[in-house]
Amino acid sequence: MTKPKLRIGMVGYGFMGRTHSNAFLTAPRFFDLPRQPELTAICARDRDRAEAFAQNWGYGSVETDWKDLVARDDIDLIDIAAPNNMHQEIAIAAAEAGKMVMCEKPLGRTAAESQKMVDAVEKAGVANMVWYNYRRIPAVTLAKQMIDNGDLGRIFHYRAKFLQDWTISEDLPQGGEGLWRLDKSVAGSGVTGDLLAHCIDTAMWLNGGIDSVTAMTETFVKEREHTLTGKVEPVGIDDACAFMGRFANGSLATFESTRYARGHKALYTLEINGEHGSLFWDLHDLHRLEYFDHRDDGRTRGWRSVHVTDGDHPYMDKWWVPGLSIGYDESFTHQAADFIMGLDGTPAAPTFADALKTDKVTDAVLKSADTGRWETAS
Amino acid sequence: MTKPKLRIGMVGYGFMGRTHSNAFLTAPRFFDLPRQPELTAICARDRDRAEAFAQNWGYGSVETDWKDLVARDDIDLIDIAAPNNMHQEIAIAAAEAGKMVMCEKPLGRTAAESQKMVDAVEKAGVANMVWYNYRRIPAVTLAKQMIDNGDLGRIFHYRAKFLQDWTISEDLPQGGEGLWRLDKSVAGSGVTGDLLAHCIDTAMWLNGGIDSVTAMTETFVKEREHTLTGKVEPVGIDDACAFMGRFANGSLATFESTRYARGHKALYTLEINGEHGSLFWDLHDLHRLEYFDHRDDGRTRGWRSVHVTDGDHPYMDKWWVPGLSIGYDESFTHQAADFIMGLDGTPAAPTFADALKTDKVTDAVLKSADTGRWETAS
Amino acid sequence: MTKPKLRIGMVGYGFMGRTHSNAFLTAPRFFDLPRQPELTAICARDRDRAEAFAQNWGYGSVETDWKDLVARDDIDLIDIAAPNNMHQEIAIAAAEAGKMVMCEKPLGRTAAESQKMVDAVEKAGVANMVWYNYRRIPAVTLAKQMIDNGDLGRIFHYRAKFLQDWTISEDLPQGGEGLWRLDKSVAGSGVTGDLLAHCIDTAMWLNGGIDSVTAMTETFVKEREHTLTGKVEPVGIDDACAFMGRFANGSLATFESTRYARGHKALYTLEINGEHGSLFWDLHDLHRLEYFDHRDDGRTRGWRSVHVTDGDHPYMDKWWVPGLSIGYDESFTHQAADFIMGLDGTPAAPTFADALKTDKVTDAVLKSADTGRWETAS
Amino acid sequence: MTKPKLRIGMVGYGFMGRTHSNAFLTAPRFFDLPRQPELTAICARDRDRAEAFAQNWGYGSVETDWKDLVARDDIDLIDIAAPNNMHQEIAIAAAEAGKMVMCEKPLGRTAAESQKMVDAVEKAGVANMVWYNYRRIPAVTLAKQMIDNGDLGRIFHYRAKFLQDWTISEDLPQGGEGLWRLDKSVAGSGVTGDLLAHCIDTAMWLNGGIDSVTAMTETFVKEREHTLTGKVEPVGIDDACAFMGRFANGSLATFESTRYARGHKALYTLEINGEHGSLFWDLHDLHRLEYFDHRDDGRTRGWRSVHVTDGDHPYMDKWWVPGLSIGYDESFTHQAADFIMGLDGTPAAPTFADALKTDKVTDAVLKSADTGRWETAS
Repeated sequence: MTKPKLRIGMVGYGFMGRTHSNAFLTAPRFFDLPRQPELTAICARDRDRAEAFAQNWGYGSVETDWKDLVARDDIDLIDIAAPNNMHQEIAIAAAEAGKMVMCEKPLGRTAAESQKMVDAVEKAGVANMVWYNYRRIPAVTLAKQMIDNGDLGRIFHYRAKFLQDWTISEDLPQGGEGLWRLDKSVAGSGVTGDLLAHCIDTAMWLNGGIDSVTAMTETFVKEREHTLTGKVEPVGIDDACAFMGRFANGSLATFESTRYARGHKALYTLEINGEHGSLFWDLHDLHRLEYFDHRDDGRTRGWRSVHVTDGDHPYMDKWWVPGLSIGYDESFTHQAADFIMGLDGTPAAPTFADALKTDKVTDAVLKSADTGRWETAS
Repeated sequence: MTKPKLRIGMVGYGFMGRTHSNAFLTAPRFFDLPRQPELTAICARDRDRAEAFAQNWGYGSVETDWKDLVARDDIDLIDIAAPNNMHQEIAIAAAEAGKMVMCEKPLGRTAAESQKMVDAVEKAGVANMVWYNYRRIPAVTLAKQMIDNGDLGRIFHYRAKFLQDWTISEDLPQGGEGLWRLDKSVAGSGVTGDLLAHCIDTAMWLNGGIDSVTAMTETFVKEREHTLTGKVEPVGIDDACAFMGRFANGSLATFESTRYARGHKALYTLEINGEHGSLFWDLHDLHRLEYFDHRDDGRTRGWRSVHVTDGDHPYMDKWWVPGLSIGYDESFTHQAADFIMGLDGTPAAPTFADALKTDKVTDAVLKSADTGRWETAS
Repeated sequence: MTKPKLRIGMVGYGFMGRTHSNAFLTAPRFFDLPRQPELTAICARDRDRAEAFAQNWGYGSVETDWKDLVARDDIDLIDIAAPNNMHQEIAIAAAEAGKMVMCEKPLGRTAAESQKMVDAVEKAGVANMVWYNYRRIPAVTLAKQMIDNGDLGRIFHYRAKFLQDWTISEDLPQGGEGLWRLDKSVAGSGVTGDLLAHCIDTAMWLNGGIDSVTAMTETFVKEREHTLTGKVEPVGIDDACAFMGRFANGSLATFESTRYARGHKALYTLEINGEHGSLFWDLHDLHRLEYFDHRDDGRTRGWRSVHVTDGDHPYMDKWWVPGLSIGYDESFTHQAADFIMGLDGTPAAPTFADALKTDKVTDAVLKSADTGRWETAS
Repeated sequence: MTKPKLRIGMVGYGFMGRTHSNAFLTAPRFFDLPRQPELTAICARDRDRAEAFAQNWGYGSVETDWKDLVARDDIDLIDIAAPNNMHQEIAIAAAEAGKMVMCEKPLGRTAAESQKMVDAVEKAGVANMVWYNYRRIPAVTLAKQMIDNGDLGRIFHYRAKFLQDWTISEDLPQGGEGLWRLDKSVAGSGVTGDLLAHCIDTAMWLNGGIDSVTAMTETFVKEREHTLTGKVEPVGIDDACAFMGRFANGSLATFESTRYARGHKALYTLEINGEHGSLFWDLHDLHRLEYFDHRDDGRTRGWRSVHVTDGDHPYMDKWWVPGLSIGYDESFTHQAADFIMGLDGTPAAPTFADALKTDKVTDAVLKSADTGRWETAS
């Protein structure tokens, strides 16, 4: 009883190329999938490094031009793990070639780019997904189930932060491998597209659409050497961005992101306050969900620290035993599994269309930071 | 060697009347003060309850009209622990009568009221102070010392929240004793003057002035029964308020306050991120200061949970031994002690003039929430 | 309606003399007591310092010989806050003079001493109490109420630790003021009587009697200068002590105490595990009780961090508002209040007879550390 | 440049069979190994299930008798993931056949069994290792490096606990798949061999040998249905075990383990207190190491919560980026990688000889629980 294959062509071999490759290798070991993923080809411009990557991860072949990858008949799915400025062109070409498309986040550098990508996959009718992996941390998925179940009642507040501290040094250059996130022409924006996009995707999944926002951005270090030109050049990205807003359900939003918060490596936190209870989650301790239930008896009521490692927690029946935690990379494994399981039924989210909504919010945030006014986000 | 007395006339016997009375009784037991505070008179409209209060706390006499209290020759200091709408009139009269004046926060319902009070005490040349007690939680005072010492370097971010959950029920009425904070005519505003004022006072003490803000407010429950009229009446206060802003030193501000955050009773938190390190404090665990020092060796660097109970921590040489914590009320004791020690030297802060600056920020916040634009805050 | 006075004669003006004095001054401000405590006399050998103490705390008079204090007609209650080696003699004399007696813990240096003290107060029929103050931290009292209510079901485990780090330096001398706890002739024992006695008192209050124990002690620094003789002398106390045991209810006990645990100032922790749930408490965050209720729904079950500051929590209706914590000293205030309220009804615990049971356990612990065998503890 | 293969024959397909299989598959993706592990054969009595396991994990073939597996020429390494009662026979046969041997912990059911296994691998001169995986949690490895570096100075205390709550129900049967840990004939002991063995292995690795112990055990549920016989039979294992002891370096040991601690799923905690500092680690938040450094400035000293996810932390340069955590299973991956890297150099620990020392301690613990006396542990 051989399963049909899902033949994958990956573009990019950086940090995200590794997480995606690992996910496709691991998912079929822990999940019963209807199709067997196969790492068919890796594509990157540097052939030597691409071959080393292929050997390490077990890719069957190597391409150095993504157009050649897209043109191959033996590829079912193009997975884009390349920098943001390449997403649009590759995704549209892949869709036009009839391939399924998975893409790292954010979908486009702007909502305009994303709109074209959505149009392409919808016209082609191909399966598509964006790697907003944090939805599939079990504690976050549990939060989603609880909210959908009405455990919190009417929602009043949603707040999220994504704090890092890795760009504080003025000696850090911009551009080039590993540093393209500081180059606006490649990344599109700074923390807004990189970090707030994650926060917004989760927020709208958990709490619905965001109607309007007012925002503030800052670039603390104005000039940095560019590794590609060797010259000191202006920094175009936002080092920090905060915004306030209103959700369609009437609740209030407060969001903040920065790469200048000493002591925080990747502190993505979210909290939601409702009539009956509240939830809090923190990427630094990703296996815990903090839950306050006001309906508990008053004298013994308190924030519950739920260690999300039991068999009845989302995804956790597939892993170890209660008390033994999984890590960051398993969120990608879950997403790969869900994508494959969704191919023959309800497509797994977030689709390109879902990710476009996030880009509309980030566009409005950046616009508001410029105009100093409230802007609509949809 | 008898110390000169400091004869106190207190106005108000509610929650704050108790904290102030306790502070004046306790301060001389633990601090070596140049003057001996004496609870000379308590003033409140209900004579029976005032007399019970006087007996409990050891006040020597009772007044039922604050004008009579202010007129007495045997009073050195008028301490105003009455609702916000009475602050201005009493404070100005007390100053004009040559009394020292202490006043609960916020100073006025608006900066205009506060300005008149500042003018009065400055014209009279009388000692004055506003009870922003959180400055004198030892962990907060330690934060101040560390920041002034340059431990954090250049500051990038300051964020504060004050979250409560006690007004979520629609059945809670407004107005009357204990509930005047929901009545705009008495309180002046909702969470902005009540909770954010604390956050702003601490923030400007720690990080300097705030230049400009953009804000958002919400009133979740639009109508509540008024206990004085017995009728359902519109709610005029802000149930929640968030704002962003820029400090004069170039750092970014994000503030939020609400009475609709389930699970948080009085969660005042503040965090400040600088080039070299960060600090975090939380009123729910007020004896701890969290400190990250980036200059620690990288492999063993982490947020330090400083249990601020040692003899070399601010104020703590006056209390017990290391590891044994003090509580909320001691912040008032410290403030009373500092006020008295400042009478013969450098006046203790925050003075009325300091508190006026906070009211200018809250005014700007409320204005911005109305206009939807950035407003200047000074 | 004047209340009858409770005229107090205090012996000792050290750390504990201050906590007791503060408790008697504060208790009537916050609790409605049937008798009004009066600080009638303080007794200590150094007259100048005794007088300074009297002036600071408002004692009416000074004695320099405790026998004179005990002989006075205007004293109702003798409160012993002197070092351990003085407890027995003073307490028996006070009882024989018909005074009520309160005594710092441990009651005696040995159970034999304590037995004589119990005999004396019982023969005299005078009210008596030992200052095991931690029972009256609201979170600990709440734990007691929950256990008595059956919330935990059958108990399997009880564990407690009291960890400090203040005697690690070999340069710290023994003996003399503030250091008598290192002198075995004065203190009776080291951490066993000082710290484990607290743990045992709470444990037997919460979980019933301890039947048998096996123990281990260690003295890490074998010699220290003695401040009274000026010579380096052997250290007789136990620097560390751990024991295991069995409670009468069949549950298992594990206890540990040391003054050599770096990073812990006064870390008294206790945990109790039962069929339905568990409780954990920590003196360093004394206002929190951690509670796990297995009967909660499995998917959202977790340790609840109960912030014990609400009006329906033990003692807390007397203090501030939810979220605002009290400190270490309030546990003494509660004990003073309970003692006075118990004078005309059910006597408040722990009485001398209760404290004797604790001393029997500490005796068995020290004996087992010597014999290397299990010893009975009652 | 093809690497030589390391051909693995696995015995057992339960929980541990999965963790080992995943480790061998994952290790070469993230570590540069001198040999390429190959999943050559899986052995288990039920052929259908063995074949399903082989297909899922990519094993090349299936055996149903471990003797056939051991006899195969195309196997380099026998990895024993079968229940404890099978360890001895398989390991000795494998060694005699010249295979490398890896074995799940504890090595034998008793030290006598383990001794025979040590003799066999040493006589055969084959590489060997026991899967005490917790040594290779990065935070635990970091603790080892810090202790070896002298960061803590002279050690005074070591304490460890391993608390679970999964056997409290009297309805839980013993014996059979997944429940053999409750059957003494299979497991050898209860929590002592299962949980305390982990604690002891880590302890002796970090802090050296244990000389002597005194212990206490309890079986709370005396009878349980046995799934293989269908009858209610006596429970032979220890449900709980605590012991105290002395390390060779003079420090004191306190250990506790139970399956009756409500709210704890797999709470393995360890703490070590030294002259200069202390360390604490907790399996429930396995990516954090708590560190107190007394040499920090006194006013800002506190327990540091080190988030062990940076590139200069042990193993973490192989994974993601700072702030992104790994989980339980990666500890097996690290162990597999270290074993393979040790084949051509210094053999990786813990070897069978190391694990024998742990079994000598557990034997002494169980003996002391029986005799009520201190027993030597080596």
